[in-house]
Amino acid sequence: MRIGMLGTGMVGAGLSTKLVQLGHEVKMGSRSGDNPKAAEWAGKAGKNASTGTFAEAAAFGEMVFNCTHGADSMAALKMAGEQNLSGKILVDVANPLDFSTGELKLTVSNTDSLGEQIQRAFPGAKVVKTLNTMGVEVMVNPSMLPGEHVAFMSGDDQGAKDKVAEVLRSFGWKSVIDLGGIKSARGAEALLLLWIHLYGKMPDGRFNYNIVRAKQ
Amino acid sequence: MRIGMLGTGMVGAGLSTKLVQLGHEVKMGSRSGDNPKAAEWAGKAGKNASTGTFAEAAAFGEMVFNCTHGADSMAALKMAGEQNLSGKILVDVANPLDFSTGELKLTVSNTDSLGEQIQRAFPGAKVVKTLNTMGVEVMVNPSMLPGEHVAFMSGDDQGAKDKVAEVLRSFGWKSVIDLGGIKSARGAEALLLLWIHLYGKMPDGRFNYNIVRAKQ
Repeated sequence: MRIGMLGTGMVGAGLSTKLVQLGHEVKMGSRSGDNPKAAEWAGKAGKNASTGTFAEAAAFGEMVFNCTHGADSMAALKMAGEQNLSGKILVDVANPLDFSTGELKLTVSNTDSLGEQIQRAFPGAKVVKTLNTMGVEVMVNPSMLPGEHVAFMSGDDQGAKDKVAEVLRSFGWKSVIDLGGIKSARGAEALLLLWIHLYGKMPDGRFNYNIVRAKQ
Repeated sequence: MRIGMLGTGMVGAGLSTKLVQLGHEVKMGSRSGDNPKAAEWAGKAGKNASTGTFAEAAAFGEMVFNCTHGADSMAALKMAGEQNLSGKILVDVANPLDFSTGELKLTVSNTDSLGEQIQRAFPGAKVVKTLNTMGVEVMVNPSMLPGEHVAFMSGDDQGAKDKVAEVLRSFGWKSVIDLGGIKSARGAEALLLLWIHLYGKMPDGRFNYNIVRAKQ
């Protein structure tokens, strides 16, 4: 599959490398199109890796990943262009984090979410919120953690969620919980308010959530 | 130990029954002091169970539990009286839920929490936020779920958290994660925004979170 990757940070690079390893073609987009981190990634990742602007990456992708910082996501997606996103699955991995006051707050939460904001701004895209609740090392290699643990998924389009779940399974995810429509992204994004405190208690970011259920 | 229980709902009654079974004396407080649900509970729970007003329950308890509805908690605690809470451990189990719009929102979240509001309003109390992240049937009988799963705990007073952890262990809790100061209650309360969507996907409320970590 051709993948458009928006974002050149650790999450964008980690996901892009994994997707190329799995045989996909990935174009990593950035604001300028000649971002040095994107060029460095593409130089290492092989012939199925390329770079471009946000618009070029989005136009290239059959599926587009938003891995920009949450505070910058709307601007990045506008540069990607509605016409390049329309009809496509837009996998939203971003979190609306704000550390400007010295402690984490979310720029949107409780009665709205970044996932919903993106879906409203790009009604032609099929937004699927997922993978925002764990570090990138766990994201692309879930079997690094022992036992069962979960990835959550939210979105209004069931077919899009099914396709994203296939990609997650190809990463090694065995347990994917479909939380419901894109409104349920409020729950997945709110988890960051817990994650930040858990992270403070852990040696590193290699942990994740599991949901334990009663035997029926 | 003498326990003051504020709240007569399912959570207050479930916790009170468990605490009496474990040998504690419990006074269940209500606004009027002659709440029929409290009287019914006390009638069944035996000689170590009694009822009274919020103030009588708080004065009675060496440890006080807030199991009122989150939206009513501040009013109930004011009726309990600062002088009856000062110097005591106040276990805050409440969630600031608001369903008035037909979908869940929190009355406080992100940059503040009910736990913090209570701690600010009653600086003499040692507030410990815990047990607000699961249904009461799991709360008082964690071994009903298979495998490991966790209770979170937040509070500024380490001695108070240690004593609450002892109570939790007596319920059967094997894994209690101390998230940090009372500010970390933001994370535990935000979990309700996820819980409500998980609950919609589950046959009933008998589920809970676990945190899976990398082997060191």
